[in-house]
Amino acid sequence: MPVLVMKFGGTSVATLDRIKRAAKRVGLEVAKGYDVIVIVSAMSGKTNELVGWVNETSPLYDAREYDAVVSSGENVTAGLMSLTLQEMDIPARSWQGWQVPVKTNSAHSSARIEEIPSDNIMAKFAEGMRVAVVAGFQGVSPEGRITTLGRGGSDTTAVAFAAAFDAERCDIYTDVDGVYTTDPRIASKARKLDKISFEEMLELASLGAKVLQTRSVELAMRYKVKLRVLSSFEEPSDEAGTLVCAEEEIMESNVVSGVAYSRDEAKMTLVAVEDRPGIAAAIFGPLSDAGINVDMIIQNIGEDGCTDMTFSCPTDQVIRAEKALELAKTEGGLNFAELISDTNVAKVSAVGIGMRSQSGVAAKMFKTLSNEGINIQVIATSEIKISVLIDRKYMELAVQALHDAFELEKAS
Amino acid sequence: MPVLVMKFGGTSVATLDRIKRAAKRVGLEVAKGYDVIVIVSAMSGKTNELVGWVNETSPLYDAREYDAVVSSGENVTAGLMSLTLQEMDIPARSWQGWQVPVKTNSAHSSARIEEIPSDNIMAKFAEGMRVAVVAGFQGVSPEGRITTLGRGGSDTTAVAFAAAFDAERCDIYTDVDGVYTTDPRIASKARKLDKISFEEMLELASLGAKVLQTRSVELAMRYKVKLRVLSSFEEPSDEAGTLVCAEEEIMESNVVSGVAYSRDEAKMTLVAVEDRPGIAAAIFGPLSDAGINVDMIIQNIGEDGCTDMTFSCPTDQVIRAEKALELAKTEGGLNFAELISDTNVAKVSAVGIGMRSQSGVAAKMFKTLSNEGINIQVIATSEIKISVLIDRKYMELAVQALHDAFELEKAS
Repeated sequence: MPVLVMKFGGTSVATLDRIKRAAKRVGLEVAKGYDVIVIVSAMSGKTNELVGWVNETSPLYDAREYDAVVSSGENVTAGLMSLTLQEMDIPARSWQGWQVPVKTNSAHSSARIEEIPSDNIMAKFAEGMRVAVVAGFQGVSPEGRITTLGRGGSDTTAVAFAAAFDAERCDIYTDVDGVYTTDPRIASKARKLDKISFEEMLELASLGAKVLQTRSVELAMRYKVKLRVLSSFEEPSDEAGTLVCAEEEIMESNVVSGVAYSRDEAKMTLVAVEDRPGIAAAIFGPLSDAGINVDMIIQNIGEDGCTDMTFSCPTDQVIRAEKALELAKTEGGLNFAELISDTNVAKVSAVGIGMRSQSGVAAKMFKTLSNEGINIQVIATSEIKISVLIDRKYMELAVQALHDAFELEKAS
Repeated sequence: MPVLVMKFGGTSVATLDRIKRAAKRVGLEVAKGYDVIVIVSAMSGKTNELVGWVNETSPLYDAREYDAVVSSGENVTAGLMSLTLQEMDIPARSWQGWQVPVKTNSAHSSARIEEIPSDNIMAKFAEGMRVAVVAGFQGVSPEGRITTLGRGGSDTTAVAFAAAFDAERCDIYTDVDGVYTTDPRIASKARKLDKISFEEMLELASLGAKVLQTRSVELAMRYKVKLRVLSSFEEPSDEAGTLVCAEEEIMESNVVSGVAYSRDEAKMTLVAVEDRPGIAAAIFGPLSDAGINVDMIIQNIGEDGCTDMTFSCPTDQVIRAEKALELAKTEGGLNFAELISDTNVAKVSAVGIGMRSQSGVAAKMFKTLSNEGINIQVIATSEIKISVLIDRKYMELAVQALHDAFELEKAS
């Protein structure tokens, strides 16, 4: 029988009643003839409670123990979901990560899945089990210890199972009814997309759209897993949600598909850096060693053998970045006059695969912002996105203006 | 280094502060040179919450899923305890049942431990780890599924580890400071015992004293594990608590060591049963098949080829017992006029290894109750205990009178 993967997030399994509602959705797919793998998150709030306890107990915690503690919420939901399905006379059983096993590397609290052998679960499907309920977010390391995949990791679990079991589709049930052209809380004209390409979704996810964990989209793209994002609070329908799929499956689309934003980016400027070969390595080497995720980089034209170097990184990494650069200065590998950190910025991005074949998108974006009197501080581009760093107070305005300029309220 | 097992119950790990307090106790033993195995329960209330969810989801639950859900509380405490110890610079790590592995049979929700290989944990001790924190109450079945050992099962986990690791002692930390001659809430003269024999503790535990799970005492007796019951809320001292040990280690003791009681026993009487060979098997066979724990049995002298048969069983098994006997009657293997169930009774027992060598204990017990005007309904005796079933309203009075009569307030 064809396999379907269904993932339910924390709000979709927050209470016993919601678990029952989710189980009914599973029942509909079983009735259609699917063998279903259900991936569950912890009941909403549970993981935060556990994380809080760990932080209070040990601020610089052993990540192996962190994983052992915070993975427990998913086990509870998996068992309860399985019992709920059994009450509906659907043969089901729960699986914890180590039982499948979901083999990961040993990078505790942000582990990567290396292999999911399908034989155990397939053998049960062959015996007549119809639903395998798997605790999301967790796996087991080569040392036999419990690992977790990072926040939002259950999305990645779901996609990895869909790939390993060659599933027909991977449905991600969440509390929003799909992927929007932008955040509807900011732009009221935001429109739900019926389809979006993996590449675009990947940019949107990493640019701050909180619908899917970035890695889950990467994985779906690599293994060509058809991914559908939909709400567990809406009536079931075949047209529900947004399908994330390969570019080829989208006949026609707007040049720009969506506008994303993030308040979690900071701008850092090294003033009067020596302008010499190897200077970039002298700056970004230490930052990389300190685990800083540098996003945008801009280097001004130098004068008198000196230049300014500006880059952006997540706000919560600013202090670590400052320390790493000061240390590099003390140790003599790097020289600069001043280091200025600015957390009062926001990143706004336009994303669309249409950019590849259509020119003038950047120009239109810059003109739109200029018309609104918004100064662009840093620019970064990729094949299918343009991001700018602007003053944070203009963020909502910029999003709305760009949404209008690219006519995202209209379907292509 | 010698190994010590320390078990902390739910109230001893109910909050992060209490976990810290418990960890300090562990630290004291580590400082003495012990390698310590800590067995933890779930934070108090957690397991009840999980059990409640399971019951609400599925009244006739799949015990395998029940186990998967209710075992999760111990995993949380194990991780938090390990982190707390690490914060005190004590090398520690947590182990879940399947990681050790604690191998059990497949009797889900009341599984029995079959083997605890010591090599994994001993290897870590050899590498310098000083404390292994093990999630109590849980194990893994031959099929690789999570099992639990029944309520209070963490005591059994602790004793089983003490046996497997040849521990010097097994300290059970709980919210009472030891084993008493009787319940201090009923008899204010109740006295804490410094030592008690395994046999006596076993009788007391199965007769209703809630300090230790019966199976843990059985196991301790079989493997000669020195067991100490003590409070985690008292100042540490070598004399704290009660030592449960082999009879030989107790120099002198009272004839009766303790008086136990239980309100959870019901009396059932089969009126006018055929008095013929095989009739006991015809009654108790079906009861055993239905999983009824029959405790006391009494058969009156027959008249006219008929007799009355009375037995006791736990109150919550009465309905099942009635069904089993009615079925046996319908099927023709058993004939009786009436079945009378009486849950308005209590069991009061006197326990003491001194009874073996001293006669007159039963006579004294009966006389004491008679002096108080208490009618004895059923009597059962073993080598070291006498139990009677009486009207429930006299229970407290009976306990107090017997405590006085056997002078239990005085140490021997």
